[in-house]
Amino acid sequence: MHSIEHYRNEFISYLESKTATREPINLYEPITYILSLGGKRLRPVLVLMATEVFGTDYKKALDAALAIEVFHNFSLVHDDIMDDAPLRRGKETVHEKWDINTGILSGDAMLINAYQLFENYEGEIFRDLAKLFSKTAIEVCEGQQYDVDFETRDDVTQGEYLKMIEFKTAVLVAAALKMGGIIAQASIEDQGSIYEFGRNLGIAFQLQDDYLDAFGDPKTFGKQVGGDIIENKKTFLYLKALEMGTAIQKKELSDLFSIQPEDPSDKIKTIKAIFTESGSTNRTQVEIESYTEKAFAVLEALKISDDKKKLLHLFGENLMRRKV
Amino acid sequence: MHSIEHYRNEFISYLESKTATREPINLYEPITYILSLGGKRLRPVLVLMATEVFGTDYKKALDAALAIEVFHNFSLVHDDIMDDAPLRRGKETVHEKWDINTGILSGDAMLINAYQLFENYEGEIFRDLAKLFSKTAIEVCEGQQYDVDFETRDDVTQGEYLKMIEFKTAVLVAAALKMGGIIAQASIEDQGSIYEFGRNLGIAFQLQDDYLDAFGDPKTFGKQVGGDIIENKKTFLYLKALEMGTAIQKKELSDLFSIQPEDPSDKIKTIKAIFTESGSTNRTQVEIESYTEKAFAVLEALKISDDKKKLLHLFGENLMRRKV
Repeated sequence: MHSIEHYRNEFISYLESKTATREPINLYEPITYILSLGGKRLRPVLVLMATEVFGTDYKKALDAALAIEVFHNFSLVHDDIMDDAPLRRGKETVHEKWDINTGILSGDAMLINAYQLFENYEGEIFRDLAKLFSKTAIEVCEGQQYDVDFETRDDVTQGEYLKMIEFKTAVLVAAALKMGGIIAQASIEDQGSIYEFGRNLGIAFQLQDDYLDAFGDPKTFGKQVGGDIIENKKTFLYLKALEMGTAIQKKELSDLFSIQPEDPSDKIKTIKAIFTESGSTNRTQVEIESYTEKAFAVLEALKISDDKKKLLHLFGENLMRRKV
Repeated sequence: MHSIEHYRNEFISYLESKTATREPINLYEPITYILSLGGKRLRPVLVLMATEVFGTDYKKALDAALAIEVFHNFSLVHDDIMDDAPLRRGKETVHEKWDINTGILSGDAMLINAYQLFENYEGEIFRDLAKLFSKTAIEVCEGQQYDVDFETRDDVTQGEYLKMIEFKTAVLVAAALKMGGIIAQASIEDQGSIYEFGRNLGIAFQLQDDYLDAFGDPKTFGKQVGGDIIENKKTFLYLKALEMGTAIQKKELSDLFSIQPEDPSDKIKTIKAIFTESGSTNRTQVEIESYTEKAFAVLEALKISDDKKKLLHLFGENLMRRKV
């Protein structure tokens, strides 16, 4: 086994060796651009790590890792168009630097390129990777659609919200890990367990992202603290507060979530107080811990050495502490 | 073997049985909508026909036929956004009926759904279909990008134009036929020959489309006659006229292709006269015949009965006479 840093560096070298801009330039240059913007490369690192966890050289997994990263960036390019986002990782988004049509078409090509990377695997491995990838990719699209739908609905349930973040975020983390299992030809049980580990960890991570968006340290949280509140986003914190709050708290919450004041600082302060006083903040933390614990519990079932379990455990802890 | 009408009806029944709208509705309803708008269903018919030409029951090919049709409609949904087109087959386009974001995301889901349809095939057939599909899909994206690029370039060569229509149109026709060969496990040589038949026929068809856009009968040509001239589209007719015309003709052509008069009727008349007097009209017809002949010549190499060759020949003739 190697360190996360090692996997990341190896992945970045491979990525760079594979992303030469071809003709037509206007199709491929935006792809090279978005893939070069960096990011933590968590998903491809998970593919490589899981492959070695199951006893196979991570080098065999580089193409699948690249496929996952290309797909992830495809979804960012198309989502950024839909969200009208000007910036991604501090740089111009593709549709901002070029135009919307370029973002659509380059994104389409990335989705196809991701599939093509699986052609480097033989027989059933190719089939299993492509099948898992399609299932996951469709779920990511469905998650994005639910997210869009929720903006204009005021009857979103907590169950629906959890399904949305599971599809939009967690299944890709889970699939990255399972791909390692497929490449290493781990047993079906182990493939299922590592998928469940990733799925629960992914949900925990996304719930924590919601929590940190309101309560994180502006110095260490990557995004603008309070961003979800400003945008009236119905996160888990909001849905729990609506469930647990007093009639007065619920009324104030609903009222504040129907306005977008020019200076949002008072609104953010009041909403955060309601989150905490209603018990939602605490309940959300309990939920994060619960999903994290579920992830760690499922690790135990894996037929791998304790050392390797510890490594996955450490990765999970570092992820939740935002140290990877 | 069955008639084209039979294949088409069987395909439409299959399509209808497979396109129930699922949750989330806003993702899947636009897909059901675009697939229900009709069209000639030429590409799926080709998959079914080619499968039977190589001696296998066309029913085995229904999923691949559906994949091709879903992909074709995915490309229409995304292209219509890029072209800002209000209508498709006389009905509202997806982004017009819903919005651009819906068009992007539903299109993405269609591309993934197309891949999933190949999962109904086993082993090497699955692999060969998915691989051919990815190669073709990437070429269609590249063709679309070249088409976009050519709008703002004034140094497009005839070779570049032919490559653009090959990628944007012909390779999908070719791939549809080859998929039949893959499903019927025809020899590599036969798979190559039927692909070449489709590729040449597809180029001939698209060149004829350019020709009919200027010289077609308004009563029978589906689109507005003169549309390409109004939009200053650098078709083969235009590029050939620029090559073959006198200095005066070239100058007039370039000048007219830099304006968009409110009443285009004089412009259309003058341009058509230049096309014909320069020899371009005639040269384009020769080129159409040449690609059609190439398509028919390659049919001869196929290891199938003369009856089946005749059937493919007849299909090609009917396609070029716009009777299918």
